Amino acid sequence: MTVHINPDRLLADLRTLSGFGKVGTGVDRTAFTAQDLAARYWLAERMRDAGLDASLDRIGTVHGRGGARVVLIGSHSDTVPMGGWLDGALGVIYGLEIARAMAEAGYPGAVDVVAFQDEEGTFVPCMGSKSFCGLLEEADLMNAESLDGRRMTDILPVPDLPQTQHRIEPDRQIAYLEAHIEQGPRLEAAKVGIGVVTGIAGIRRFQIKAEGRADHAGTTPTSMRRDAGAALLTLGAALLNGFPRWGYADTVWNIGKIVFRPGAANVVPELAEMIVEFRDLSEELLDKIEAEMMALATAYSGHFGATITTTPIGSVVAVQTTGALQDILAGAAARLSVPAMRMASGAGHDAMIMARQLPTGMLFVPSIGGRSHDVTENTGDADIVRGCQVLATATEMLWKSNGGTSQ
Amino acid sequence: MTVHINPDRLLADLRTLSGFGKVGTGVDRTAFTAQDLAARYWLAERMRDAGLDASLDRIGTVHGRGGARVVLIGSHSDTVPMGGWLDGALGVIYGLEIARAMAEAGYPGAVDVVAFQDEEGTFVPCMGSKSFCGLLEEADLMNAESLDGRRMTDILPVPDLPQTQHRIEPDRQIAYLEAHIEQGPRLEAAKVGIGVVTGIAGIRRFQIKAEGRADHAGTTPTSMRRDAGAALLTLGAALLNGFPRWGYADTVWNIGKIVFRPGAANVVPELAEMIVEFRDLSEELLDKIEAEMMALATAYSGHFGATITTTPIGSVVAVQTTGALQDILAGAAARLSVPAMRMASGAGHDAMIMARQLPTGMLFVPSIGGRSHDVTENTGDADIVRGCQVLATATEMLWKSNGGTSQ
Repeated sequence: MTVHINPDRLLADLRTLSGFGKVGTGVDRTAFTAQDLAARYWLAERMRDAGLDASLDRIGTVHGRGGARVVLIGSHSDTVPMGGWLDGALGVIYGLEIARAMAEAGYPGAVDVVAFQDEEGTFVPCMGSKSFCGLLEEADLMNAESLDGRRMTDILPVPDLPQTQHRIEPDRQIAYLEAHIEQGPRLEAAKVGIGVVTGIAGIRRFQIKAEGRADHAGTTPTSMRRDAGAALLTLGAALLNGFPRWGYADTVWNIGKIVFRPGAANVVPELAEMIVEFRDLSEELLDKIEAEMMALATAYSGHFGATITTTPIGSVVAVQTTGALQDILAGAAARLSVPAMRMASGAGHDAMIMARQLPTGMLFVPSIGGRSHDVTENTGDADIVRGCQVLATATEMLWKSNGGTSQ
Repeated sequence: MTVHINPDRLLADLRTLSGFGKVGTGVDRTAFTAQDLAARYWLAERMRDAGLDASLDRIGTVHGRGGARVVLIGSHSDTVPMGGWLDGALGVIYGLEIARAMAEAGYPGAVDVVAFQDEEGTFVPCMGSKSFCGLLEEADLMNAESLDGRRMTDILPVPDLPQTQHRIEPDRQIAYLEAHIEQGPRLEAAKVGIGVVTGIAGIRRFQIKAEGRADHAGTTPTSMRRDAGAALLTLGAALLNGFPRWGYADTVWNIGKIVFRPGAANVVPELAEMIVEFRDLSEELLDKIEAEMMALATAYSGHFGATITTTPIGSVVAVQTTGALQDILAGAAARLSVPAMRMASGAGHDAMIMARQLPTGMLFVPSIGGRSHDVTENTGDADIVRGCQVLATATEMLWKSNGGTSQ
């Protein structure tokens, strides 16, 4: 038999899930809100209906367990504040639908489904997958605080949740597969229905600060100033000129924030700060770009009489997905005649955590207009259905290649 | 006889005046505060002691009138919030001391002294000199509001002030002379005690705005962005590269403020704004620089997919001081063997208003470290005394060249 997903059932479940926290076309379902927990109880029920042994753990991660040997499929069911209906939800409902479709195709119990908690980092980014992999220290969990000042110690233990903690089972789980909306415009622009994710880009983020002296901009000759703003502006422009030369085709970068102090039209800035980040799948390339950036910052220090300093303020190590799983995903798309392209993910996902512990594959479907983390986030129904079928076919291929048979 | 100022009396009066609103080494005496009005009553008393017919008008400008033919000397006695002890005060006390010294030299009544109201623009920049020259519409005065929300209608009429308005008297007043601290570092750097002000630079100020689209900086390829931040940064750097080529030696410019929206490390800026200004004594040069700037902004519009627009947000027309008075001031310095240099003023002054109605001359003394509008503002006693003597000698020369004689 061959696995066939049920498009109507898939779309209906996605729409039902979007009802938890629905706000207009969007969804507001941040981790640990009443809507978030209600959605998780509903998901556990649906997993049980699919024949899985499903439960929530102490932080709300929903794990629906299949048989003795499974493909683990899932994502997260929490959202950013005022987010969209598909970010996270898509991958979870794909898992549920594929568990059902695999059972209907004669492979009951071939799939575990997971809905991780707080991927969006209301408290801890990828909390659920980190906890699942044993990579979250209890102190780091309990000391976490949300941007609006709520503390995990005020939230845990959640009444009604068991005190258990779901954990990865590498002896039972063959691989982790996660589907997700692209959250970017590349698939749509290329008119390609499937992105086979080669890895999740590493991030390097820096604060670059120029320090000068505040002077009256009418009475102080430019030659006698220490102009932090001019130093930072010209360095910023030089970086924007350098990045395309230093990076590969898929490298991305951003100067997203800049501030001058005191920030008055007629006062020479005494302090200027900007935040610069760049991302790529190659840590080696990130090292090279960082070295180029540091060299340029050093070269520009002293320009306009200002002193420039660079401080790393965060980094995420690049993670590669499993090559064999990339091939299976690409093979499934080819078998179904769905155009697919290999691409890196510029955003973080639970797959980034899971890849440290299990063979991991990841699949993208197009995002309309590249929108996400916004109520306008959307993907066409045909793309949603196509993506689920490709992941189901890949699951079947993976299952069979690991010795699984139909009953 | 030759005019000789009294250094001790000059410095003592300056120090007494600084006691009104004194805060540490600085002075907080903004227009219409109790300290401001108390200082003005004290100034009127000192002018009467000098033999002048002195009074405050409805807005607090103090005018001490001399004889039938006079040189008008003064400045303002209000300060910026937490300002220095010399900005404005110096020019007023110079006027007072020169009125006394001229009388002592046998020229009683040769000088009118004025302490204008609100040069610093707590309500209306150069309120006093504009009102004095008949250039302030009653509606503009009454509709004025301070940054902290106080309205002129709540302040006027001030109890105890007469309802009169002091006015320029061109038939009686030969010229207006104003001394002021430089508020910049040029005289100090050049080790020159006197600046003969050639004029007050015109100002052109613009808001330059780039509009793009907010995108996830990890998932959106740089080629598919509309990056308002990158467009503005590179235009800013190009302007900083252009200004030195477009301007003359004394032209100054500033990019004092820049903002990116939404202003997050991982979001491509959808809106970026900066404020650009430049100043020069030549309106023709300002026109040329503005044209160059506009051409560059137009050329950069479309770069990085962003649209750039430029909006004028303020301009001040350059004002030349009277050539013959520059020569008299330079001649007085030479006669006293005080090194002097001609220079434009980059900041605005009451002289800028007065020059429209009377022959006007202006003199600068050095500012230590170029500091002003700050409690650290200072000038060495020797420079203060030297500047007053130069202005006194120039007043005597001007008086004599206009047919004045000693009694």
